[in-house]
Amino acid sequence: MVVELISVGTEILLGNIVNTNAAYLAEQVAALGLSCYYQSVIGDNEARLCEGIRTALSRSDIVILSGGLGPTQDDLTKECAAKVLGKELIMDAHSKEMIEAFFAKRDKKPTENNWKQAMVPKECIVLDNPNGTAPGIIMEENGKTVILLPGPPNELIPMFETSVMPHLAQKTDGVIVSKTVKICGMGESSVETMIEDMLERQVNPTIAPYAKTGEVHLRVTAKAVDDKTAKKLLKPVVKELKSRFETNVYTTEDATTLEQAVVDLLLDRKLTVSTVESCTGGMLAARLINVAGVSEVFKMGHITYSNKAKRKILGVKRSTLDKYTAVSAEVAHDMAKGLSSISKADVAVSVTGLAGPDGGTKETPVGTVFIGCSVNGNVTVQRYQFSGNRAKIRESAVAAALTLMRSCILADYSLTFRN
Amino acid sequence: MVVELISVGTEILLGNIVNTNAAYLAEQVAALGLSCYYQSVIGDNEARLCEGIRTALSRSDIVILSGGLGPTQDDLTKECAAKVLGKELIMDAHSKEMIEAFFAKRDKKPTENNWKQAMVPKECIVLDNPNGTAPGIIMEENGKTVILLPGPPNELIPMFETSVMPHLAQKTDGVIVSKTVKICGMGESSVETMIEDMLERQVNPTIAPYAKTGEVHLRVTAKAVDDKTAKKLLKPVVKELKSRFETNVYTTEDATTLEQAVVDLLLDRKLTVSTVESCTGGMLAARLINVAGVSEVFKMGHITYSNKAKRKILGVKRSTLDKYTAVSAEVAHDMAKGLSSISKADVAVSVTGLAGPDGGTKETPVGTVFIGCSVNGNVTVQRYQFSGNRAKIRESAVAAALTLMRSCILADYSLTFRN
Repeated sequence: MVVELISVGTEILLGNIVNTNAAYLAEQVAALGLSCYYQSVIGDNEARLCEGIRTALSRSDIVILSGGLGPTQDDLTKECAAKVLGKELIMDAHSKEMIEAFFAKRDKKPTENNWKQAMVPKECIVLDNPNGTAPGIIMEENGKTVILLPGPPNELIPMFETSVMPHLAQKTDGVIVSKTVKICGMGESSVETMIEDMLERQVNPTIAPYAKTGEVHLRVTAKAVDDKTAKKLLKPVVKELKSRFETNVYTTEDATTLEQAVVDLLLDRKLTVSTVESCTGGMLAARLINVAGVSEVFKMGHITYSNKAKRKILGVKRSTLDKYTAVSAEVAHDMAKGLSSISKADVAVSVTGLAGPDGGTKETPVGTVFIGCSVNGNVTVQRYQFSGNRAKIRESAVAAALTLMRSCILADYSLTFRN
Repeated sequence: MVVELISVGTEILLGNIVNTNAAYLAEQVAALGLSCYYQSVIGDNEARLCEGIRTALSRSDIVILSGGLGPTQDDLTKECAAKVLGKELIMDAHSKEMIEAFFAKRDKKPTENNWKQAMVPKECIVLDNPNGTAPGIIMEENGKTVILLPGPPNELIPMFETSVMPHLAQKTDGVIVSKTVKICGMGESSVETMIEDMLERQVNPTIAPYAKTGEVHLRVTAKAVDDKTAKKLLKPVVKELKSRFETNVYTTEDATTLEQAVVDLLLDRKLTVSTVESCTGGMLAARLINVAGVSEVFKMGHITYSNKAKRKILGVKRSTLDKYTAVSAEVAHDMAKGLSSISKADVAVSVTGLAGPDGGTKETPVGTVFIGCSVNGNVTVQRYQFSGNRAKIRESAVAAALTLMRSCILADYSLTFRN
């Protein structure tokens, strides 16, 4: 089965937005074991859109269109798809109710043009959109499938996962099963070197490395006749990767992020945590707090961007700041120590660094970051040198802080027997 | 002149990378006043690539291909483009030298397959690539232009700007100039309603609204024979938008973000700021600290996710938390008041809310957020109801906090005469 993606929208043609929907859909389609030979972008223009749909149907089995389902006259995807397939548009009572409910929940009233969104092609499958007003649509005709999805990613992604994925899964003759081995605390090239032999001899399963900020993900993908056989193929490869990378593997679950793994570890060990940040300015706490249920473990966070705040809140000595400067191992140490004492948290993490663009010196160039981690009073301090712009350096520092927290907790074996 | 973009690469078709090149090229092409009706992605497959180039040439004047210029057998873009245009590939001595120099600079030696990259179509323009080994190529034939660019963005972007842009500029008979009016504190539909008349009668300049989290951007684009005339066309429209949206317009500069505008306002008024966050957990401070030079104004930040931290750090009373709950106007007020007192900052902002997914009640559903802002001791508290998932609610709360800070500072007229 060959799938083709058409992204509809003048804003993509003008380069005003990056087409992340296409990357998302392509990845999902590949994971389902379906092939994708073409992706295209077409503006909100009836003639070109109809022609694009016709061309796609002539060479692919399943055409997924995203965008152009809005309430305005500009939005033409549904009208064009229905026209090409020779289907009439009719009012869908259920979609109308969903739209009414969507607005009612927000204490608002739909406008007249919202009813255009409740019009659907005759004999189609209507997909509910709990996150917006445009329902999705699946049309089947002469062995071909046309799927229409709303453009906003926060509507498209849940709809794809809830309604489209199960529909497409029925159409594949084999299955593709993937598992991602997520590694922290190592760079991409070190990871690749350690599995060079495995990368060279890979056939089925395949191993694909993806570098993320502060992490490397190894996606292991097996193709087989059924789920059980595919999983059986995956198992020894995942086991081998886990044994090679040991504790650097923080999860093999797709949904688990590094911050989730750290929070899980804290919960598991019954440890509380506090943070204090200088250059990352709250990003570390924000990532931890992105984990639902973090309230069990998170005691408090501070942002001490200025030296005065470091002194006032954490009791870092003026003499230490003067002697070593704010971006130093000593200050990172004293920040973690001070935080541990004021917050009474079991784990206290400090970040101080120079994110730039200005202020670098030969000894402390832009990108220098010190991270301190106190676990039950034992403070570890690590120096890092990151590259990239201000945002990239800050992101790298947050990933490094999560990694250091994790390894300090894991290294403190005394904790294992705590409860 | 109509331009068409073809991105070549199986990694894009598989969704392994997001196609940022297409967005970049599309934006540049639009800025040059050239139209773009189609973008497509094709894998590393000879038949499909040749067919794609033929189709593009049949409907567009200029075809820009990116990717597939690497040294391996998989890389077919140059071979296919030459084949379609009936051009022979020959060794280009200058490119060979450039490749040798590229490797020499890095103390490495080219491999045999790098010489494939020095092969170019007969009678083409060769574009130097100081950042990689694949030269770019411009071919002109029967009034049509085919441009080949390397895939890595750090090679493509400099090559486009240095060599392709001047070449394309000769082909345009006019220029396109844009200005973005950035609005905060209003939803997209309210913004559109206020300029319905302008949207209806727009021809040149055009006005395109883009909704961002907590913001709406109006992109005003004028087409004219030269830069000066285009800017003259823009001026009255931008002026009219500014007068309609008054202080909701926080900038008309492309590079200025909402947090930058807030920091600029603080700097301008010589005000210091502190933050305390519950559900946003540091995201507000992190956005402010993303602005280089924020150290002049940022005093301290706190993350009081737990009630205990709200009591301990800010002195919020246990009785207030018990009576009104943590997500209440009263607690947001006392958090801002407490922060103002401990930090001595001129502006003290507090955020407390329920980001979910659990914990919602009828009175305080998930998405309820209270933001408090104290300016010189006068506290304003605002209630918000956001929708979406945990991440989206938190992002919306941060945008709302920046907007509220801005409007509280602007409203405090006494400050205007402070210095």
